[in-house]
Amino acid sequence: MAVYTEVDSETLATFLTEYAIGDLVSCKGIAEGVENSNFLIHTSAGVFILTIYEKRVRPEDLPFFLALLDHLADKGTACPRPIHGRDGQALRHLMGKPAAIVSFLEGVSVRRPKPEHCAEVGRAMAKLHLNGASFGQRRRNDLSVEGWKTLAQACQPLADGVRPGLAKFILDEITFLEGRWPTRLPVGTIHADLFPDNVFFIGDRVSGLIDFYFACTDTLAYDLAIGLNAWCFELDHAFNVTKARQLLAAYREVRPLSPDELAALPLLARGAALRFLLTRLYDWLHQVEGALVRPKDPLEYSAKLRFHQAVQSPAAYGLS
Amino acid sequence: MAVYTEVDSETLATFLTEYAIGDLVSCKGIAEGVENSNFLIHTSAGVFILTIYEKRVRPEDLPFFLALLDHLADKGTACPRPIHGRDGQALRHLMGKPAAIVSFLEGVSVRRPKPEHCAEVGRAMAKLHLNGASFGQRRRNDLSVEGWKTLAQACQPLADGVRPGLAKFILDEITFLEGRWPTRLPVGTIHADLFPDNVFFIGDRVSGLIDFYFACTDTLAYDLAIGLNAWCFELDHAFNVTKARQLLAAYREVRPLSPDELAALPLLARGAALRFLLTRLYDWLHQVEGALVRPKDPLEYSAKLRFHQAVQSPAAYGLS
Repeated sequence: MAVYTEVDSETLATFLTEYAIGDLVSCKGIAEGVENSNFLIHTSAGVFILTIYEKRVRPEDLPFFLALLDHLADKGTACPRPIHGRDGQALRHLMGKPAAIVSFLEGVSVRRPKPEHCAEVGRAMAKLHLNGASFGQRRRNDLSVEGWKTLAQACQPLADGVRPGLAKFILDEITFLEGRWPTRLPVGTIHADLFPDNVFFIGDRVSGLIDFYFACTDTLAYDLAIGLNAWCFELDHAFNVTKARQLLAAYREVRPLSPDELAALPLLARGAALRFLLTRLYDWLHQVEGALVRPKDPLEYSAKLRFHQAVQSPAAYGLS
Repeated sequence: MAVYTEVDSETLATFLTEYAIGDLVSCKGIAEGVENSNFLIHTSAGVFILTIYEKRVRPEDLPFFLALLDHLADKGTACPRPIHGRDGQALRHLMGKPAAIVSFLEGVSVRRPKPEHCAEVGRAMAKLHLNGASFGQRRRNDLSVEGWKTLAQACQPLADGVRPGLAKFILDEITFLEGRWPTRLPVGTIHADLFPDNVFFIGDRVSGLIDFYFACTDTLAYDLAIGLNAWCFELDHAFNVTKARQLLAAYREVRPLSPDELAALPLLARGAALRFLLTRLYDWLHQVEGALVRPKDPLEYSAKLRFHQAVQSPAAYGLS
């Protein structure tokens, strides 16, 4: 959410000559994205986003992300389309770091989604899953069960300082999920971070999905479980079943869910809540002095996790 | 250089209904400007900059700044033009703070100005002075001699921690300048902060001047002295007389300088260097824990001040 690497206009103008997208007209560092440096640039040919990749993204994953965006854009997904240089390469280097330019997407994210927005997101996610089915590359989800254990260990000594009992709460949940985590549900390319920040709307219609830097190959219904956590709770952490019903119904109109997928939703939703609890807790406990990013409250996701723990059947999510 | 106040898209869309500039299509927080929150917004009618004014700008000064931009834009200056609401008001409120929307200017600032850029800036500044002559409002320069004394007092106890002897160096300079500061040179509306950050170029041509939040009524040649400090030193603080010659010659082609103005340049340049030494030193010594802005090195301006102190005549600036 900040600009970590500054690039001067002379360097940028030279960098742009590697592409066939016209001359530099304007460049503004923008507050957007997961700890990368992002710039909104105007050239004589159009509007683009330049991303300089910082530490959070592993360079070896970048070819996967960019190929995925190429694939999805070709299939008609409203996602950023990588701009390839004159030599055909989309992944380049700027200021000594990996960098890429993608097409600019109009639209704004909503802070307080309405049920209509949730339906739109469900539809967009289902289309994303269908469009991703023919993508040939795979990437392991680092933030699934094994990754949770690593994060939990790193947080263990200090977790109770955030809330007494939190360390045991997390370990118990990992133990519970580890033995039951579904392995036979339909798998494909998932976004894995489709939060309101990452979905643009024009009016009440989805105009774009962004920030694919957690995308991976995993259980499709797990993406939906992340969506339930991200879109269907109110600011006071109360679950809004109307929003969940809308999100799930719209998804199922595009991509029907099997009985096994439906049955697994409560468990997947617990796992999704735990994943964000853990990454937020880790960031909370490992704040860098002077960092430009204010970490998000991890306990929001402990409240959500408690909700899913109490769920008796998928009907709690508004499924009929 | 950061976004201090966040505004959600629902609130912003409602705010835009106060104007006749179409519907919200996109909004990005941008890293630009002096400690205000700035957003690049696309509407169905065009591209604009939204500024939410933060603590550094005094609310009572905002009508002056916006009226000045209106006046200058009417006169043909390439500066942001305030967008007036349906009720005629340009100065409005958003998120409980003063806010304004202005037109967007294409162009990029240069990190390493070339002599041609300096000539362009000289020309643009002279035109600004001519265009400002018919502006009816006045604003006192808070950062002239009296302001320096206040800042120097606030920095006095800690200045020597930045560099031994700095406190006395500053006091001696204030004493020297105070008795000699020119009061009879031509006065008008000056930008007072026309640094490379605040000048946009397309190619080698000035396309826009921004950030008028230090603009005030003061000695016109003092603006030129600020320009010499801002544009005509290299990164190692060496003075580049070629750049100074270009800047001054281009200025004088548009607005001739009187013999008194020419003679006063070395003194004015000392004052300008002291002004930026003091504000940077103050910011350096009063860093807010967790602030998003990294303060600039004050000693850059002590080096520049030493240069001007050694100047024997205006000829040192390339004047023939």
